[in-house]
Amino acid sequence: MEDINRVEQIYKENIEKLNQYNNLDLNMARGKPNTLQLDLSNPLFDLLTSKSNFKGAQDYRNYGILDGIPEAKKLFSELISVQPEEIMILGNSSLNIMYDTLQRAMQFGVCGNEPFNKQGKIKWLCPAPGYDRHFAITEHFGIEMINIKMNSDGPDMDAIYEYIKDPQVKGIWCVPKFSNPQGIVYSDEVVRKFAQMKPAAKDFRIYWDNAYCVHYIYKDVKLLSILEEAKKYGNEDIVYQFGSTSKITFPGSGISWVSASQKNLKDFKLHMQFQTIGYNKINQLAHVNFLKSVDGVYDHMAKHAEILKPHFDIVLNVLEKELKSLCNWTKPNGGYFISIDLPNNTAKRAVELAKEHGVVMTGAGATYPYKKDPNDSNIRIAPTLPSEEELKIAMEVFCACVKVAWAETKLKK
Amino acid sequence: MEDINRVEQIYKENIEKLNQYNNLDLNMARGKPNTLQLDLSNPLFDLLTSKSNFKGAQDYRNYGILDGIPEAKKLFSELISVQPEEIMILGNSSLNIMYDTLQRAMQFGVCGNEPFNKQGKIKWLCPAPGYDRHFAITEHFGIEMINIKMNSDGPDMDAIYEYIKDPQVKGIWCVPKFSNPQGIVYSDEVVRKFAQMKPAAKDFRIYWDNAYCVHYIYKDVKLLSILEEAKKYGNEDIVYQFGSTSKITFPGSGISWVSASQKNLKDFKLHMQFQTIGYNKINQLAHVNFLKSVDGVYDHMAKHAEILKPHFDIVLNVLEKELKSLCNWTKPNGGYFISIDLPNNTAKRAVELAKEHGVVMTGAGATYPYKKDPNDSNIRIAPTLPSEEELKIAMEVFCACVKVAWAETKLKK
Repeated sequence: MEDINRVEQIYKENIEKLNQYNNLDLNMARGKPNTLQLDLSNPLFDLLTSKSNFKGAQDYRNYGILDGIPEAKKLFSELISVQPEEIMILGNSSLNIMYDTLQRAMQFGVCGNEPFNKQGKIKWLCPAPGYDRHFAITEHFGIEMINIKMNSDGPDMDAIYEYIKDPQVKGIWCVPKFSNPQGIVYSDEVVRKFAQMKPAAKDFRIYWDNAYCVHYIYKDVKLLSILEEAKKYGNEDIVYQFGSTSKITFPGSGISWVSASQKNLKDFKLHMQFQTIGYNKINQLAHVNFLKSVDGVYDHMAKHAEILKPHFDIVLNVLEKELKSLCNWTKPNGGYFISIDLPNNTAKRAVELAKEHGVVMTGAGATYPYKKDPNDSNIRIAPTLPSEEELKIAMEVFCACVKVAWAETKLKK
Repeated sequence: MEDINRVEQIYKENIEKLNQYNNLDLNMARGKPNTLQLDLSNPLFDLLTSKSNFKGAQDYRNYGILDGIPEAKKLFSELISVQPEEIMILGNSSLNIMYDTLQRAMQFGVCGNEPFNKQGKIKWLCPAPGYDRHFAITEHFGIEMINIKMNSDGPDMDAIYEYIKDPQVKGIWCVPKFSNPQGIVYSDEVVRKFAQMKPAAKDFRIYWDNAYCVHYIYKDVKLLSILEEAKKYGNEDIVYQFGSTSKITFPGSGISWVSASQKNLKDFKLHMQFQTIGYNKINQLAHVNFLKSVDGVYDHMAKHAEILKPHFDIVLNVLEKELKSLCNWTKPNGGYFISIDLPNNTAKRAVELAKEHGVVMTGAGATYPYKKDPNDSNIRIAPTLPSEEELKIAMEVFCACVKVAWAETKLKK
């Protein structure tokens, strides 16, 4: 047990420290690229002019092609190690594809199975901490979410294998590489266990959101191709893979993809053909012209890494200096976040204090289904958007808030 | 009754005429702009360069803004005579917005009402002939479609007023200006009747697809603003308006909008926020930079009209020359189609014959719900895509096919 006087001293010191900062307006809440990163892709616009060639499989300026231009299918299928006929290139947002995919499953069912809407209670597995917008979608559809523990090599597969014996369990959210928020990369063993799982529900699918597939910062880490692995077990219908260029080129103005077995893609198109004639093919073409090849994508991502590394260094250094004895955090090799576990029952208060002092964090609990962190412990730090100078201040404030929140619990304030 | 010898002669003449044409590959099926029209908007690409200013309400290259950039809201709200807070600027396809809007109504209900999915049988009013993709959406959702007769000033409002007494009737498809396929513009009286209708179902909405709002060819015709009219009756929640730049700039690579009362838009956003973070704002900005203003849009549409006028002239002239005594057709002032009514029970056969001779038409029946034209009479002609030379040949072939199909019914062949 801590010496109460020592705690009181820490409390006072950090309150004083916080009082030094006035009128801050800093944000470490969302995984948004910063201006320098956005500037990296500006040359994309110079490749499109009134004199450009817009012709490929057809004149891409006109209607047609539901599932993406062949040039983009080629590039992005290579990037994620699948076949060109196992990918569709769609609109400006992979979140939108995921939502639409789940909405289709609700309304029309998966591959000829009964619509989820008609199957009574539906359940979903949610490795947590995880991506708040995933959990928000399943909650919005009234799907019961089940927390799955995250280990250092991916979700707790034993727990998952138990839960999928229940035919009401219809899917799982995964961010398999540089996971949001922990930056964990699923091990080969974990990917193989996903690839060969045989859930009781025939319409169970893995929603494999490979949002950070090439987004390394310190070191790239190879993720096994789940679709290729699944094929080895004749189990290729088990997974839908999603991704986008939102954090390669421009968030919300890039292109996105879904990759799955041909049977699954055929099932998608059966319904998609009523929803749209096709997606923005000119933007697809511009992206292929700009990124050129898989090597081109990696060259481009090296520039992102160079910009982001100092940001992550700052966060990790300040945490090491300030919170070593109090908290645990991840040291990711890539992605957009650092995940920190505070002492139990202090996360909400720390975020509240930070907000009062002008530093906006992702809401405490946001990384868990129903926004309920059972321990009130996890906070997601997003170091990308602020400048390095801002980030140093924001982290000083944040760490002081963590210490005050902790001290308050000890002092029963 | 026609002299049977005269019919036999017409049959032979036209069979011979058709036999003159070999290996044609012409298409009058879809309302696609031609290359000259697409070229009109190529300068849009020169306005976006790596040095462009992407900042407005925020840096438009980054995440944010669910409902469209203010610059685009201003321009397009002016264009369709609504307030900026009564429009949202979204993605690349208004069809996609319509589909998503109906899917939301199915899954979540309209403005707090019970989801359509939970209301048993749902019915929809379908002025016909109409747009095949509209009917395909309602059919896909399992909604019962009811044919509404089209008059020269819009749909049969008496019939509509009768049907909306049924609380199972939840909506109606409308293309109020230069309608697909007839090119009809709804009269002020018709618009006012729509604006003040009080259906039994509180969750009834007019799906007002103003796809051709500025797409005149011979003469622009003013369409009353249904939202402004509806406000006069305190009935502004009755209508959703849709539109896009697909046939202003680039089909599938333009931007789209939905306009409705603030209450309706709030209801949309309540669900949309889970579907996406936002749409392609850079493309929205590019469109504003290119089109500039309402006057800019009209200047641009004058160039489209100049290109399209000869196409429509050809179709109308050949029809006048060849089918005057046999068929009735519309002479639209704008839009993308000419609608022709053949003698009953000949449309399918005429389209089949045309296809055999290398001229693809929109499928007979496609302009009716369930693809069932009760008279097998209506065919949609799309004169925009083929060159003028191709169009002349295609129309000669088509007219010969109509005569052969008609003669066959007379000769019981």
